[in-house]
Amino acid sequence: MLPQWIIEKKRDGAELDTREIRDFIAGYTDGSIPDYQMSALAMAIYFNGMNARETADLTAAMMESGKVIDPNRIPGTKVDKHSTGGIGDKISIPLAPLAASCGATVPMISGRGLGITGGTLDKLESIPGYRVGLNESEFFRTLETCGCSMIGQTAEIAPADKKLYALRDVTATVPSIPLIVSSIMSKKLAEGIDALVLDVKCGSGAFMKNIADARLLAQGLVDTGTAMGKKVTALITDMNQPLGRTVGNALEIRESFDILNGQGPEDSQGLTIELASRMLAVAGIGAPGSVAEVHDLGGGVSDPALHAMVESKLRDGSALSTFREMVACHGGNLDARLPAAEKQIPLPSSKSGYVAKADAEAIGRASLLLGAGRAKTTDTIDPAVGISDLKKIGEPVEEGEPLCIIHSNGHEDEMQLSQLLESAFEVSPDPVEPPPLVLEVIHS
Amino acid sequence: MLPQWIIEKKRDGAELDTREIRDFIAGYTDGSIPDYQMSALAMAIYFNGMNARETADLTAAMMESGKVIDPNRIPGTKVDKHSTGGIGDKISIPLAPLAASCGATVPMISGRGLGITGGTLDKLESIPGYRVGLNESEFFRTLETCGCSMIGQTAEIAPADKKLYALRDVTATVPSIPLIVSSIMSKKLAEGIDALVLDVKCGSGAFMKNIADARLLAQGLVDTGTAMGKKVTALITDMNQPLGRTVGNALEIRESFDILNGQGPEDSQGLTIELASRMLAVAGIGAPGSVAEVHDLGGGVSDPALHAMVESKLRDGSALSTFREMVACHGGNLDARLPAAEKQIPLPSSKSGYVAKADAEAIGRASLLLGAGRAKTTDTIDPAVGISDLKKIGEPVEEGEPLCIIHSNGHEDEMQLSQLLESAFEVSPDPVEPPPLVLEVIHS
Repeated sequence: MLPQWIIEKKRDGAELDTREIRDFIAGYTDGSIPDYQMSALAMAIYFNGMNARETADLTAAMMESGKVIDPNRIPGTKVDKHSTGGIGDKISIPLAPLAASCGATVPMISGRGLGITGGTLDKLESIPGYRVGLNESEFFRTLETCGCSMIGQTAEIAPADKKLYALRDVTATVPSIPLIVSSIMSKKLAEGIDALVLDVKCGSGAFMKNIADARLLAQGLVDTGTAMGKKVTALITDMNQPLGRTVGNALEIRESFDILNGQGPEDSQGLTIELASRMLAVAGIGAPGSVAEVHDLGGGVSDPALHAMVESKLRDGSALSTFREMVACHGGNLDARLPAAEKQIPLPSSKSGYVAKADAEAIGRASLLLGAGRAKTTDTIDPAVGISDLKKIGEPVEEGEPLCIIHSNGHEDEMQLSQLLESAFEVSPDPVEPPPLVLEVIHS
Repeated sequence: MLPQWIIEKKRDGAELDTREIRDFIAGYTDGSIPDYQMSALAMAIYFNGMNARETADLTAAMMESGKVIDPNRIPGTKVDKHSTGGIGDKISIPLAPLAASCGATVPMISGRGLGITGGTLDKLESIPGYRVGLNESEFFRTLETCGCSMIGQTAEIAPADKKLYALRDVTATVPSIPLIVSSIMSKKLAEGIDALVLDVKCGSGAFMKNIADARLLAQGLVDTGTAMGKKVTALITDMNQPLGRTVGNALEIRESFDILNGQGPEDSQGLTIELASRMLAVAGIGAPGSVAEVHDLGGGVSDPALHAMVESKLRDGSALSTFREMVACHGGNLDARLPAAEKQIPLPSSKSGYVAKADAEAIGRASLLLGAGRAKTTDTIDPAVGISDLKKIGEPVEEGEPLCIIHSNGHEDEMQLSQLLESAFEVSPDPVEPPPLVLEVIHS
């Protein structure tokens, strides 16, 4: 079947069969199907969508375009978490060692910053010496030693996705649920995992701006993972305000330490615990009897016994020591000083009241302006800069009290920065109800 | 503005402005915008369309991607005809010299066979010695001497269209009205013409299978030509049965001679006269007084005085002598024998009655099988083969009388050929009304 016939079939709204999807992706990977046919198909998929079966086939085809880690080479039950990305989302960093300290194995392959702020890899690289590019045997050794390893995507993992992702970016075919789902899942499932928890961000600082779109994406991710034989849970979580109190690479590492010490901000601490217990649940890892008091972040809570186990691993220091061990295996030096910015500038509130808005997108753009993210892929990140001590929606604030602290190395346009941050915050004279963090939970 | 933003704008259903369309096509022509962005835009146009202004801008941008003939270099009023293509459509060949003999100047740039049968160039090349590739000064000299010249598209005419046409073919973006309109009109208007008549074919043997699609295309062509300051008339004509009684390159040259002698089949003879008088009308070429009796082919008739003038040029031999002169200017030898096939095989009717069906598509495919067309662009055409003496819908036929005569050089699969031709014809015991030829006429 000629590639143009497959494009035509999707253009006309028909369902592509498994063979057609496989052949197209195989041809695209080996170069026999050129970019111009792939982009035409991507645009046809943008308009006509793909059903669950087609999306799973596309995911499998992209996954099989490269190396798929043999699950038998990694001991234990392999489980991972993936976030669709948001401002201040450092959860992966404390979460992987936390889940590992509870008995899970977490072979986490992460990405760089795609939108406005740094990605998990950028944050980890603010730890002096941390190498995200372990070779395969180093990766397996780290998993055996620590139960977790956090590396970057290699050229061998889902090369079709790597090609297609770059192509979609320049052909206006990014916002398509089946294409997003297959891109995420082809990489994650190439890790050889048994189960997966997804954190679908929803709000101004996320790719999905509204709950309807977030729900479609979450359902697509769960359906595809399930079709491929994995246990999957997706949480839809709020991203109208940043997560936690820091945005910026080294600053988020500091907050990760707080979380691992059980001292993190209520939202990022709570979400880390919630996601860890969800990971244990999908991995089928049981908890010893006792039931802890669980704070409901919205959307219900997972097994209280799992929460209790997770919290005990924070309390007894084993999550933190797993993190230290993992960083050491990656060549990182936690005794060295984390990068710090030259200036710390408080942003005072112009009035007293309650924080009514702390807009994730504006705060993300402010941190990009400071140098914490990339406007172009070739930009370099300043690990030291960012924003800390963020007030959260619902919190009281006095006139003159800081809404946040700006960490600057003096490279930003100050006028633009202050405009962005002024637009980011609103203070109301009346009390404001803090928004729920977990909006919905979708299971296999 | 980045190309992907323009694609995104069209993807989201917005109207592109003149600058965006120009920049995109200019970038595509010079190679700074790659095929994969053009194909994504083409697919977005397929889904979301273009309004009349955008289509005219796209046409202008494609026309200006190459050489536009300076109208001042060609004497007289320049007018052309374009057909969207059908089975047995040889009308251009007698039409150009006929219109020229009435005082019009016809600088006709034609294409090769695109679908199943040969194109005008292929038909002309069955005349021994005929060169479709005149250089510019030969082309102008032929126009001055004969009032018409029929050449092939050069690399300098609308190169953006040449690139885009090839790309659309392999990306399932052919059937899009604005893309078809701009492809046709960018080439035609690069001829430096003042006016244009379009023959939009409609039926089984045409690209447009139904009147609704044909009407959309005809209206798009007229609107675009008008927006670009040209007088344009579009006729929608039937293509459920072949035009005339011959299909095949040299066979169609023979029928063209019959038409130029005023002895052609009723439909192809009549349509040639109708289109010639429409060309004179849009060109504003007046006729001397006398009014002829005009046969209405459907859709009304053009000016009877123009019909009379056109018919007089057939009767007095001046159209034929203009044709002879033009062929000589192109190096063709009309005294040489036209290619003829080895075998002439009649296809007898299995019963007596009236022809109820003579399916254009099936007859076209049969002639392709005989070697009269190209399945791939690299195929060579056999000028001798084809089908002649076609019975037309409504004509009576006796059992055993031929429905057509097959001209073969013995290279076809006989089984497949006879299956195709059997499916092509139906004979009814009851009289059948011949279908109208001209279905609709759309003016500027």
